Amino acid sequence: MATDATQTAAYEELLDRYERISNIEGAAGILNWDQEVMMPEGGTPARSAQLSALSATSHELLTEEAMGDALDAAESAELTDEKAAAVREIRRQYERATRVPTELVEDISRTTSEALPVWKEAKAEDDFSKFAPILEKLIDLKRDYAEQIDPDRPAYEVLFEDYEPYLGLDTAERILERLREELVPLIDAVGESDVELASPFAGEFDPDIQEALTRDALDTLGYDWDRGRLDTAPHPFSMGTTFDARVTTRYEDDDLLGALTSTIHEFGHATYTQGLPDEEYGSPLGENRNLSVHESQSRFWENHVGRSEPFWSLFLPHVRERFPELDGVTPRDAYEAANRVYDDNPIRIEADELTYHMHIVLRFEIERELIEGDLDVVEVPQVWNDKMEEYLGVRPDTDAEGCLQDIHWSHGSFGYFPTYSLGSVLAAQLYASADEEIDDLDGQIEAGEFGPLHEWLTENVHQHGKRYTTPDLIEEATGEAFTADYFLDYASEKYGALYDL
Amino acid sequence: MATDATQTAAYEELLDRYERISNIEGAAGILNWDQEVMMPEGGTPARSAQLSALSATSHELLTEEAMGDALDAAESAELTDEKAAAVREIRRQYERATRVPTELVEDISRTTSEALPVWKEAKAEDDFSKFAPILEKLIDLKRDYAEQIDPDRPAYEVLFEDYEPYLGLDTAERILERLREELVPLIDAVGESDVELASPFAGEFDPDIQEALTRDALDTLGYDWDRGRLDTAPHPFSMGTTFDARVTTRYEDDDLLGALTSTIHEFGHATYTQGLPDEEYGSPLGENRNLSVHESQSRFWENHVGRSEPFWSLFLPHVRERFPELDGVTPRDAYEAANRVYDDNPIRIEADELTYHMHIVLRFEIERELIEGDLDVVEVPQVWNDKMEEYLGVRPDTDAEGCLQDIHWSHGSFGYFPTYSLGSVLAAQLYASADEEIDDLDGQIEAGEFGPLHEWLTENVHQHGKRYTTPDLIEEATGEAFTADYFLDYASEKYGALYDL
Repeated sequence: MATDATQTAAYEELLDRYERISNIEGAAGILNWDQEVMMPEGGTPARSAQLSALSATSHELLTEEAMGDALDAAESAELTDEKAAAVREIRRQYERATRVPTELVEDISRTTSEALPVWKEAKAEDDFSKFAPILEKLIDLKRDYAEQIDPDRPAYEVLFEDYEPYLGLDTAERILERLREELVPLIDAVGESDVELASPFAGEFDPDIQEALTRDALDTLGYDWDRGRLDTAPHPFSMGTTFDARVTTRYEDDDLLGALTSTIHEFGHATYTQGLPDEEYGSPLGENRNLSVHESQSRFWENHVGRSEPFWSLFLPHVRERFPELDGVTPRDAYEAANRVYDDNPIRIEADELTYHMHIVLRFEIERELIEGDLDVVEVPQVWNDKMEEYLGVRPDTDAEGCLQDIHWSHGSFGYFPTYSLGSVLAAQLYASADEEIDDLDGQIEAGEFGPLHEWLTENVHQHGKRYTTPDLIEEATGEAFTADYFLDYASEKYGALYDL
Repeated sequence: MATDATQTAAYEELLDRYERISNIEGAAGILNWDQEVMMPEGGTPARSAQLSALSATSHELLTEEAMGDALDAAESAELTDEKAAAVREIRRQYERATRVPTELVEDISRTTSEALPVWKEAKAEDDFSKFAPILEKLIDLKRDYAEQIDPDRPAYEVLFEDYEPYLGLDTAERILERLREELVPLIDAVGESDVELASPFAGEFDPDIQEALTRDALDTLGYDWDRGRLDTAPHPFSMGTTFDARVTTRYEDDDLLGALTSTIHEFGHATYTQGLPDEEYGSPLGENRNLSVHESQSRFWENHVGRSEPFWSLFLPHVRERFPELDGVTPRDAYEAANRVYDDNPIRIEADELTYHMHIVLRFEIERELIEGDLDVVEVPQVWNDKMEEYLGVRPDTDAEGCLQDIHWSHGSFGYFPTYSLGSVLAAQLYASADEEIDDLDGQIEAGEFGPLHEWLTENVHQHGKRYTTPDLIEEATGEAFTADYFLDYASEKYGALYDL
């Protein structure tokens, strides 16, 4: 009995320490959201300092000796599988963190906070040279960071594991390569097809009414407003905790579908967060597995639900009610519009399901070379545009539409992009399982019955938090190892039918 | 030279430590703002935990041994007056904090975070019994807190010093007593006056247009939007740093003046924050002196500017432009409306300049008795209503309009209310000095030239941060000790003229 109590105490002590860190990081999440959505421009110096203080504090709490002792004590206790998994995750973070000096952590935090407005300005003025110096500084800092963690492995491999710790960069490469091999001919075939898909959403759409329609979409899909909110941000994102998972989007007058699909995407992220177990709040068992799995949830809703024919049968009446000028549009028209392949589009977040992966391959190649020192920052615009031409046959007119389009590098996020494609691939694998296990999934979607689908995802993905590693989670949820088969089958079947290939 | 360097190093080390704490508290400020203005209802458990973690962390950082050592080292160095003042302020906080156990700090933070939605619900449902248990818990916690700091002095005196550390509770009492003695007959005389002031703002006013007008007011007065923003909150407040000082307000359909005066009040607070020296960000020299001085700035703008005749000559055209139905209103009408005395109003934040102080006296008496254990929580509604009847001749119909009207106690803020009256009194003393030193201040206000006034306040109050104690700051700014004379002269002169006394 005494031993049991001691063992529980060791675990509880570790979890208490971790919960403090987790809450400090949650606070930083709110500060980041505020910075993107609410903060006046002049607020940057204070915000940088605040984020830097939180980041340094959580780093210190994670790396202090007492944390190492608490980990050792918990690891030598006999624990349930669940608790052992929580300890495994804390150990992983501890090991990575103890190798990085607090000073470097603070420096990265301060620099990314400063980089954000610089990137915004550079993008607004289409002037890459304004962003280049701070980008170079961020690359140096992140390279240093990777070297501190593991000097014996390529820096990019180490950075990638911040976002996807268990699949391995080799798996990511293999999947990306397979996508390129099989999607490039498919995209070519689409480009050569004579089929012209419907394009019924041309025109100007009042952003306020778009917002109302976006709220309709979130209502329809079952967003829990009591634990979330919708706002606008220049680069849509979602963030939060199981109790407060927020969504942002943006509205363009001439792009009705853009706001809808982007919001459904962020909704997918938010449902994952809202679906994490309340009772594990503050523990790794209450945290999302990692970015690939997170992205699988957003792609699941964006692509497999939000771009499906049953969804458009369900949702089109809302669109026609908000915009009576679209009264003649049919569900089939909307479905076609939501699935048009744009092989001449330079913007990642406006890309369709197929060409999207070429945008990722390009970024993956460039950022890896930047981190490994094989490419200079000044060369980025040229290389970006060359690759874009090579993969998609389009050359961006401006850097704002080219290498300045994404926020990620200003966050210091190198190794993040591949998780988008991995997420898409996983979404297809999960959807295939859900479709097998849920009776008449298409019919349920068309009827607006999303309960069973939310339940399936919560039960098979969300509620596990970080209990399983990524490969184990995929195996548990789908009965199979991670594979691109389902995505490629889905893509060739869907686009084959749409474009009469 | 070596000694100089060592002394500078000791001071810098102390300041670095303090800056971390200050930034963590700034982060908590954003989380509090978000909770009031943005957070979905379900977010409470996570927000409570986050605020509690920040509060415990800043408490630990302030009380750790290394902080005591850094203070000792800095104190034994030879410092400029400014630096010595910064050290004095950190010492004061350190001494107060080291006496309070972290557990108690966490408990208070968690309880206040939980109390907020409880208070909101109790107020909405007009049910004091819902709020009573958590109020009782907060009183116990704050009494415990005061006892930890100084078991030999009355708890309320100790708590008061959290908000106004240097004037002393005896000064507060003396001022409040004098206000009661001299204002009660003045309020009575007003009540008996036959003069009927103009009341031209009756009607319904669209909240969206009120918001536009409120923004006009902030533009007119010179709010720095690059370092601030305006939102709505159930109980208006302002918060932030010199780089990001936000204002909140609220709109009632039938109360056009309410939103304007409340916003000008919060604007006054925000100008103080925006006027703190940028270069001292994170140091006590970059922080507001304390609540009495803060309140002097809000009252300065709300009463001495916003309720003045020159201001209404300047601003009325904006009102008439936003609300064309008010086309016949004259500046004199508006001035009279802004200065009506409502001796039958039970709501503090809707009170005029005279009766306001009776609302404060009432709260001061009740909260002191609550903290000193001379009054039970369950008795609050009865005592509140009895006192209201005694001082103002009005009995609130509901607790929502009585003892549940203010947010302060749900924040655990006992000893805060007196600073409102002290602030009013100080505002009058400051205004008298500014009026003497600025050429034709009335004329400048009427012309919308607020530059010289902002400069005077920045130079004499804002830029000093916490360099001077409250009494010294008042002496520096006005050449005199703190006195109620100016306020009482101003009140009897203004209201004597308005009501023909």
